[in-house]
Amino acid sequence: MDNIEKILSFIVEVEKLKNVHRQTKPVGLERFENSAEHSWHVCLTALMLKDYANDEIDINRVIKMLLIHDLGEIDAGDTIVYKSETHDVKAQETAGINRILSTLPGEMSKEFLELWYEFENGETADARFAKAIDRVTPLLHNIHGGGHSWKTHGITKEQVFSVNQRIEKGSKELWSVMRNKLEDAVNAGILE
Amino acid sequence: MDNIEKILSFIVEVEKLKNVHRQTKPVGLERFENSAEHSWHVCLTALMLKDYANDEIDINRVIKMLLIHDLGEIDAGDTIVYKSETHDVKAQETAGINRILSTLPGEMSKEFLELWYEFENGETADARFAKAIDRVTPLLHNIHGGGHSWKTHGITKEQVFSVNQRIEKGSKELWSVMRNKLEDAVNAGILE
Ligand SMILES: [Ca+2]
Repeated sequence: MDNIEKILSFIVEVEKLKNVHRQTKPVGLERFENSAEHSWHVCLTALMLKDYANDEIDINRVIKMLLIHDLGEIDAGDTIVYKSETHDVKAQETAGINRILSTLPGEMSKEFLELWYEFENGETADARFAKAIDRVTPLLHNIHGGGHSWKTHGITKEQVFSVNQRIEKGSKELWSVMRNKLEDAVNAGILE
Repeated sequence: MDNIEKILSFIVEVEKLKNVHRQTKPVGLERFENSAEHSWHVCLTALMLKDYANDEIDINRVIKMLLIHDLGEIDAGDTIVYKSETHDVKAQETAGINRILSTLPGEMSKEFLELWYEFENGETADARFAKAIDRVTPLLHNIHGGGHSWKTHGITKEQVFSVNQRIEKGSKELWSVMRNKLEDAVNAGILE
């Protein structure tokens, strides 16, 4: 198969991400979010909040990371962050991203796999910011949506503050604003 | 309201794009695509096909265009391309994008409105490529999905070839491949 046909097959294959359901509902909607529309939303969020990164970042690399960050879920499914950092979940996502990206022409496959590992490891400035942004939108869903996924999954305020404090590694300013919103959520009784 | 709060409100407001339904169904799904997941899909498609652009392009600007290109539909709704190029539809989308982007801090509002107009006008190399990519994914949906939206809307092969020939303005190579796929669709009887 020539390269353009390989890429078009990849483009059709990744549509499956539109059928991977997440744990939160978009503000105002009664259905769960899927990982494809989530990926768009975090790219746009990163773009609009780029000036709040702690360190100098390359927003174009951040957006590329976020465009592909969830592709491993096509095989692995989405797991709520409070339960996702286990060896098994990570191994499934890693196998998934390797399978999907290996369908691209060789050079591209390598380039995007490296970018995905950089995101996963979360050590570079770009990856820290991308990971911070990835935490913001589900918090907004819960804050504006009566804490629906916290309640469904029995997530406590201690878990929410502890897991989301990582936002600070990407943007202290953003974490300060989000922490205030979470404290408001506790005061409003939607996070216990 | 300070800037970070303005941006977070924008981020919540644009979620409404997840509830704007398009005219085609993603490959393998029984439901219609929404404009948010479509926006992700075209960004990823542009990124993967960037080397096939006719002219030198800035893929990062193309992706930014595609991230925001459909935001006007939050107020205007989506219209099938074969019927969308009327004065009324364009006026509604223009009013919509102006309303949405005006909620951002001033400088950003101006920057992204200019980018949206550049996309709409379709004259620069970046805009021509972005518009070409925006045509590719609904064609793939129809080609892999029995021509469902062509049939529903009574779209003829003459209309499909004439409207989508614009792909050529962004990428001759991509149009050549897509034209072959459309000819196969005619031969298979799913496009008449
Ligand atoms: Ca549209």
